Amino acid sequence: MITMIKRKYILERLAAGPVVGDGSMMFTLEKRGYVSYEKWIPYAVLKFPDAVLQLHREFVRAGADVIQTASFYSTDDRLNLPGKDCNFTCKEINDAACKLARKAADENNCLVCGGISPTPSFELGKDEKVVAEEYAKQLRCYEENDVDFVMCELFDNIREVEICAKEMKKLNKPVAVSMTLGLMGDAEGVAVEECAVRMAKTGADIIGINCTFDPNTSLKVMSRIKSAIADLDPKPYLLCQPVGFLCPEVENNRLGYLTLPEYPLALDPRTLTRSDAHDFGRQAFELGINYIGGCCGFEPYHIRSIAQELQEERGIIPPVNDMAQPYGGSFFQQSIISSIEGGGRQTKEYWQNVNLGSGRPFNPPLAKPVDRKIDYTRT
Amino acid sequence: MITMIKRKYILERLAAGPVVGDGSMMFTLEKRGYVSYEKWIPYAVLKFPDAVLQLHREFVRAGADVIQTASFYSTDDRLNLPGKDCNFTCKEINDAACKLARKAADENNCLVCGGISPTPSFELGKDEKVVAEEYAKQLRCYEENDVDFVMCELFDNIREVEICAKEMKKLNKPVAVSMTLGLMGDAEGVAVEECAVRMAKTGADIIGINCTFDPNTSLKVMSRIKSAIADLDPKPYLLCQPVGFLCPEVENNRLGYLTLPEYPLALDPRTLTRSDAHDFGRQAFELGINYIGGCCGFEPYHIRSIAQELQEERGIIPPVNDMAQPYGGSFFQQSIISSIEGGGRQTKEYWQNVNLGSGRPFNPPLAKPVDRKIDYTRT
Amino acid sequence: MITMIKRKYILERLAAGPVVGDGSMMFTLEKRGYVSYEKWIPYAVLKFPDAVLQLHREFVRAGADVIQTASFYSTDDRLNLPGKDCNFTCKEINDAACKLARKAADENNCLVCGGISPTPSFELGKDEKVVAEEYAKQLRCYEENDVDFVMCELFDNIREVEICAKEMKKLNKPVAVSMTLGLMGDAEGVAVEECAVRMAKTGADIIGINCTFDPNTSLKVMSRIKSAIADLDPKPYLLCQPVGFLCPEVENNRLGYLTLPEYPLALDPRTLTRSDAHDFGRQAFELGINYIGGCCGFEPYHIRSIAQELQEERGIIPPVNDMAQPYGGSFFQQSIISSIEGGGRQTKEYWQNVNLGSGRPFNPPLAKPVDRKIDYTRT
Amino acid sequence: MITMIKRKYILERLAAGPVVGDGSMMFTLEKRGYVSYEKWIPYAVLKFPDAVLQLHREFVRAGADVIQTASFYSTDDRLNLPGKDCNFTCKEINDAACKLARKAADENNCLVCGGISPTPSFELGKDEKVVAEEYAKQLRCYEENDVDFVMCELFDNIREVEICAKEMKKLNKPVAVSMTLGLMGDAEGVAVEECAVRMAKTGADIIGINCTFDPNTSLKVMSRIKSAIADLDPKPYLLCQPVGFLCPEVENNRLGYLTLPEYPLALDPRTLTRSDAHDFGRQAFELGINYIGGCCGFEPYHIRSIAQELQEERGIIPPVNDMAQPYGGSFFQQSIISSIEGGGRQTKEYWQNVNLGSGRPFNPPLAKPVDRKIDYTRT
Repeated sequence: MITMIKRKYILERLAAGPVVGDGSMMFTLEKRGYVSYEKWIPYAVLKFPDAVLQLHREFVRAGADVIQTASFYSTDDRLNLPGKDCNFTCKEINDAACKLARKAADENNCLVCGGISPTPSFELGKDEKVVAEEYAKQLRCYEENDVDFVMCELFDNIREVEICAKEMKKLNKPVAVSMTLGLMGDAEGVAVEECAVRMAKTGADIIGINCTFDPNTSLKVMSRIKSAIADLDPKPYLLCQPVGFLCPEVENNRLGYLTLPEYPLALDPRTLTRSDAHDFGRQAFELGINYIGGCCGFEPYHIRSIAQELQEERGIIPPVNDMAQPYGGSFFQQSIISSIEGGGRQTKEYWQNVNLGSGRPFNPPLAKPVDRKIDYTRT
Repeated sequence: MITMIKRKYILERLAAGPVVGDGSMMFTLEKRGYVSYEKWIPYAVLKFPDAVLQLHREFVRAGADVIQTASFYSTDDRLNLPGKDCNFTCKEINDAACKLARKAADENNCLVCGGISPTPSFELGKDEKVVAEEYAKQLRCYEENDVDFVMCELFDNIREVEICAKEMKKLNKPVAVSMTLGLMGDAEGVAVEECAVRMAKTGADIIGINCTFDPNTSLKVMSRIKSAIADLDPKPYLLCQPVGFLCPEVENNRLGYLTLPEYPLALDPRTLTRSDAHDFGRQAFELGINYIGGCCGFEPYHIRSIAQELQEERGIIPPVNDMAQPYGGSFFQQSIISSIEGGGRQTKEYWQNVNLGSGRPFNPPLAKPVDRKIDYTRT
Repeated sequence: MITMIKRKYILERLAAGPVVGDGSMMFTLEKRGYVSYEKWIPYAVLKFPDAVLQLHREFVRAGADVIQTASFYSTDDRLNLPGKDCNFTCKEINDAACKLARKAADENNCLVCGGISPTPSFELGKDEKVVAEEYAKQLRCYEENDVDFVMCELFDNIREVEICAKEMKKLNKPVAVSMTLGLMGDAEGVAVEECAVRMAKTGADIIGINCTFDPNTSLKVMSRIKSAIADLDPKPYLLCQPVGFLCPEVENNRLGYLTLPEYPLALDPRTLTRSDAHDFGRQAFELGINYIGGCCGFEPYHIRSIAQELQEERGIIPPVNDMAQPYGGSFFQQSIISSIEGGGRQTKEYWQNVNLGSGRPFNPPLAKPVDRKIDYTRT
Repeated sequence: MITMIKRKYILERLAAGPVVGDGSMMFTLEKRGYVSYEKWIPYAVLKFPDAVLQLHREFVRAGADVIQTASFYSTDDRLNLPGKDCNFTCKEINDAACKLARKAADENNCLVCGGISPTPSFELGKDEKVVAEEYAKQLRCYEENDVDFVMCELFDNIREVEICAKEMKKLNKPVAVSMTLGLMGDAEGVAVEECAVRMAKTGADIIGINCTFDPNTSLKVMSRIKSAIADLDPKPYLLCQPVGFLCPEVENNRLGYLTLPEYPLALDPRTLTRSDAHDFGRQAFELGINYIGGCCGFEPYHIRSIAQELQEERGIIPPVNDMAQPYGGSFFQQSIISSIEGGGRQTKEYWQNVNLGSGRPFNPPLAKPVDRKIDYTRT
């Protein structure tokens, strides 16, 4: 009974108002020392559970509604690829990930979302049954751990989405499908609009995009997705979880920020500010996005800014407001900072309009993307 | 006996080669949701000890030799200032801070440093005895908790350093004094060179600077400090812990990055990359700095980069190397990333020379600092 | 007989290879002190003929094939607008302009092109006959002065082009029509492709675009024009004369660089370098543009760079090569400049790849265009 | 008698208020096609006299008080260097230069200044008599042509200034000496302050700096020169004629803008705007500079801006004001430009504060200067 209620919980929240997702697990854990760049396997759920739990908790404090399991790329076929050096199985990782996500989520009545990643089996052209089985294995684990809903993420091929969604729909849980899409469409050149319709037609409750493109590019794509499905009935909810790095120069490049010369070790100067995150939250909401979160590079303070931006619309005060209010809020009004010459630092307007320096006058603001494809399905 | 050994441990390490400090506690905990901007009081040691412990552990994993207690600004006179809204005493905070630092430090044989902050009593012109007593209270707590050495930090007035150092020397522990100094000297205009000599003459074992200026400016100041004390005998060890944000435009401004229009909510685009941190570590070492760490903005991955840069000189492999090697290291050599067009991402040279975009072509790289003083001793 | 030959001369040149146009008369004379910003009337042909002649000569020396008459905006209906303060008639100005252009052109066997500007009568919705008569008056003057061909320029409405071209075709001279078009099409939203086809169908010998957009945007538009008329037979020659200021941020703004906050007094940092002009010449040629020149901001040294870039294809050495060779050429090879550290300044590669500073680290590289229309048909 | 009056004329003007110099002859003629980069010899006075005369006239129209002879680098010893390829003698060039300067100057009651350049004989260490004779030859020509005063320019060695000034003083004409000095002092490391005092002690009526550094750096140097001679009595007048390209990154590099990677072919994005020139004029006046003009890169519209900025102080309306008023002036107030959204383009404030884009988001604002010396005394 109680499970039944939980299973619908995400849809109830979406029906009631904007839902705030969580942010980057893999990138953030990498900076903290618990994930390897370019391996992107969350062994940490088994080897450093405290570190994973702590990060989950920070997203809970930030005001997220949903905690996604730290189970990225953990399909058995990928774990066995050369270079991954992994002695754990998908089941071991995902079980541990579910428990940590649930523990944190329960601290503030949040939901747990079981995440599903694309599989090398699809990329290598294996039989659809083989591909489907990779998803089924993950899903069985999520069923056993009774996550609140499931989401496939970072799929860049609409055909693979369709295979995966078929498996997801077999569970009696809400289903979200999320692709990585820039203005150029999917890996095979299927246009954004067609991807949108086909995602919707899988029967998913939520469709959208995540990763690889920045908030501005992602909102352009979401606007096209929204238009493409305008006449469908029923319509799925919309989701958007972009990267936390500004990269306007790659919006027409299918591989997005992966083609920046700074990827992956030197993206820091592109980091969103809090104001950028506020703006993204506001604009996403106004565009009609129902599920607003972040992917790589979205740290807890970015998710906090989204949750604070929408606290009136959601009727939810993020727990972190005891320490940090929107744009400084009343803390800044009482502080010496409000008296700085030129003034206004205690206001939203100041932070929305402040000129941001990079401190790097010998560097250009934009970088020339590399031309060639990165085969990011490997290693 | 064993205490005696521990008390000298920092000096033994300094005599043997470069010591790596830890990074930012307050700024990093703020981003995670456990500290308030502009209050800068670490209530978290009592209210969110797991979060503090986790961050300490990340610096340990990163390869730091020293864990500083999370006890910033926690003098009783400051805790009682209007706007701080603090119900805890200095003793309560510092006790808890010592225990958390020790727990993390012991996980990899690191040292604990008890940190001492400037007091409002000095700023308000109170009697020297009153000022000294504020330091004495903190020091008694560090003695009870048997920290390995003590350090006063962020002092911008050499007269206050002298008062504090006198108290610090009463303990039977190594003493470090660190000022915040840009090219213009201290708060009363005392030149860098005179500050250097007077710091040395306090009898401190270690002298140096921290906070407020970026690595490049800080190394210019350290070079002048080194020259100023070249003829002293004995000479103290040298320490440098700058902020992790590039801000070349404020090097002649006594209040440094506090005068940037982006302070404190929008400094993100100025964040150091790993390569910047490597370069800082290398340059500091070559200049003869013995104790190399970071202040506000230095996240665990920045400290990691310093420790990795100097791993041969120190003969110490940072624990985090199981997850992240210098400049990608062997992980990148085996990875698909090594085959990206243009090439070279598996090499140090690539990351030292890559052009870094900010992704913000509508923003300038430098900001006009505000003219007026920020009274940062308050609130 | 001889007139007949001259009248076809531009078409013969175009058939033989790339033709180089001249550059900016009005902007350049303004900088020299002989034209008023925002009046844009070339009184100078009557009041300062030496200054106009000198500038024509510089374009001749630079290697231009064509000298356009300094007759911009000199239709009687515009000369009588309030704010123009002009006591001269269209006929007086255009007569003088023809004589100066011819004098300079004859010094190196160049051609004279009579230029025709859009009229306020069209903008004000006057009867087509009234509009046509404004063109007819200009054309009679060009006939009397026996210019080599005529060109209407800066037309932003394809309907007006059609009215004008009808008059132009009545002369027994080659006809060029040039619009100002960005990616968004003409003033009434007619798409680039439709404008292209309709320009071609006027029977003009040459069609193309000029002014308002930079070389990069203009080449994108020309590429679409080329595709749009690919199946026409006969096909007109293609012309491109962009502004000499980089302004990528306005390519989707119909009013182009007029919407930049720096217009008109502070465009200097956007000035093309010689390498930019070389690149434009090369790319235009490779795209199949037959007539390559410049508009506002193209100084003699920019036209020189185009002529030098294409000197082999044209079989013409620009007269100015006695003083300035492409990318420094043999002069630099013999000069001390070839020995500067880092080297290579005597090579084309160096200048094509050199990083260009603005010297303005407190300014952003891009500007936010203003939203509102500028009614540039007035004053 | 009449000569006597003329000889004192510059000093009378300086006594009465700020004097405006002219701008760049060589750089500007190069862009127009009449001078070779890196040869820098004004053959044009003999081969293209109309072009030289025209440029002089533009400076006269702009409001300059003084027209300098186009006689740069035309000492016989330099004309005979390999690579200069010059068949003319110093006397031939300078005679022609004097006549052209006088013709233009007389059109608006301006003065003629005979310019003297450093000689290779000094650089090659020849006997002082040999060096002095190179100056004497130039000076005899200026005496015969009765210029109003003489100025040695671009000297980077105070010893050579002293040799030259001794010869200049033999004429019965006012004498100006101008060095090229950045913050690092002269070619042999003599500090700015010592250079200032020694320039003054030559008995020159006017001392100052020109070329190689931008207005901001040059004003810093002039401020030090002013302080250095504050106690001398009598004191010479002060002169400043910087380059018209912003290059803050080379202020501590003795060779200034010659060390930029963009020198000489790609300096365009660094060009001063009119507002920059206004600001320079105002700041120079407020610092107490008496003679304010420009060197390489100062085009007529830059000199115009200085003359317009100081038109009240000088009581002189520049002739060009019939075509171009300060910051647009009344022309803009009547124009459609005054109605552009956001507004204010008809005001000085707008143009002083407008953000200037470079249009180059893939380029950094500053360039790394090359390290090595350029031997600019050769070729």
